[in-house]
Amino acid sequence: MKKRDTKRSNLPKNHPRYESLKYRHEIIEGMHNLVVAEAGLIAHGRGECFDYILGEKTNEVAEKAIKAAVAALLLAEKPVISVNGNTAALVPRELVKLSKVVNALLEINLFYKKKGRVKAIKKVLEKAGATDIRGTSKKEMVEIEGLESNRRFCDSIIDADLIMVPLEDGDRTEALKKIDKKVITVDLNPVSRTSIWADITIVDNIIRAIPKMILIAEELKEFTQEQLTQIVAEFNNKKNIQDALELIKNYIEQQKKDAFKILNNH
Amino acid sequence: MKKRDTKRSNLPKNHPRYESLKYRHEIIEGMHNLVVAEAGLIAHGRGECFDYILGEKTNEVAEKAIKAAVAALLLAEKPVISVNGNTAALVPRELVKLSKVVNALLEINLFYKKKGRVKAIKKVLEKAGATDIRGTSKKEMVEIEGLESNRRFCDSIIDADLIMVPLEDGDRTEALKKIDKKVITVDLNPVSRTSIWADITIVDNIIRAIPKMILIAEELKEFTQEQLTQIVAEFNNKKNIQDALELIKNYIEQQKKDAFKILNNH
Repeated sequence: MKKRDTKRSNLPKNHPRYESLKYRHEIIEGMHNLVVAEAGLIAHGRGECFDYILGEKTNEVAEKAIKAAVAALLLAEKPVISVNGNTAALVPRELVKLSKVVNALLEINLFYKKKGRVKAIKKVLEKAGATDIRGTSKKEMVEIEGLESNRRFCDSIIDADLIMVPLEDGDRTEALKKIDKKVITVDLNPVSRTSIWADITIVDNIIRAIPKMILIAEELKEFTQEQLTQIVAEFNNKKNIQDALELIKNYIEQQKKDAFKILNNH
Repeated sequence: MKKRDTKRSNLPKNHPRYESLKYRHEIIEGMHNLVVAEAGLIAHGRGECFDYILGEKTNEVAEKAIKAAVAALLLAEKPVISVNGNTAALVPRELVKLSKVVNALLEINLFYKKKGRVKAIKKVLEKAGATDIRGTSKKEMVEIEGLESNRRFCDSIIDADLIMVPLEDGDRTEALKKIDKKVITVDLNPVSRTSIWADITIVDNIIRAIPKMILIAEELKEFTQEQLTQIVAEFNNKKNIQDALELIKNYIEQQKKDAFKILNNH
């Protein structure tokens, strides 16, 4: 086992960046345990920055997308939630819980191959309560057309009508749309190729979005098919993404006014 | 040696994200060689995101700050360039060249302690042509007041009149300002505490900013003290940071218009 650079135990809970540093620790631990790819640390950093310029909270724009996404998951006949290393490291229990509430399968799908990674992620999901985990046996997988990366290997995804792909790469989202799958994503970059290609894009941090989805799912489970269908029909993904960009602009404008205030306190 | 997740040799030069992926590779290699801390990968990802919303080029706002920074370095009596793991991994030759052109000392200063890291960074800098590297022997160091992290240990920095701290943490920048040092930084986050506290903040990617600084230094070396003093006096860091924020707002506004064009080509 490698020596750690950071120690979570050293971090006081009242530290202004406690939450952010806690999840940074989970990602680094995930790398030590093979769950997270090395490039996954860099991807996590990109997410941190986008979260920062979105104000680090689930805004009303994200809430709209979350509601539409949950309605779509409840309406789907064969929904699948795709799990990669970062999502498994950050929100394993929440992923399992969501999959149960909306009755979706969990399938491991990775960009970076490495001996032992699938097994390590499977273990994390099992520890979090998952009992049926797909994408673990290459023999049972088929390849998606038009995709060269390791992500082309699919198990239950190939038969799904709706796939939720949090923290996804653009190539696979595009490939999934081209074989007519409905796609939901959680992506902090509102204009990533995944965000643009997806049917429903939740521009939010996965650590807040998934728990919120579970809460909303408990509520929407009481709704009729018609009510759920209406929620999905009324959702406009393009407008929602543009609204998220508008929020970023407002945040930056606010920073122009506020950023120098810290100097006045000294 | 650990097995690598990514192979640089696989990357075609015409890949749309070749540059970005090349430097991502350098950072991951740096971690394998102890030069880069694990948290340095996450920091690199944050930088990637800010660079992205700045359009991934050195804009006119950054150029103004670069010119003022170089003038200040040439005017300084005892300038020091502080080197951390990420800068050593990304631009070792450029750091050494800049230190020679503006006659500044190089001093290794790290947030994350780990056995062998200082030695690994020293080796990288020596390979890049450095002959006088400070901050390598703890016996010769003194502590900066008001700072708890490992960054408090200083060698030549304590006697410097001007310190360039690229990719710095806010605590040390604040501590350096409180002992009346002039501070230059290169930071892609225009409103990080380092950016706000510094006297001159270059909001740019270090892989572009340092080579640009070397070019400008060759030019400004011919200037008189008066001319250099005027360049520094005319520079307004607060306004420059606000101009950088305005550029980000413009970029986001452009994305609102352009982001969905990729769907039309399919």
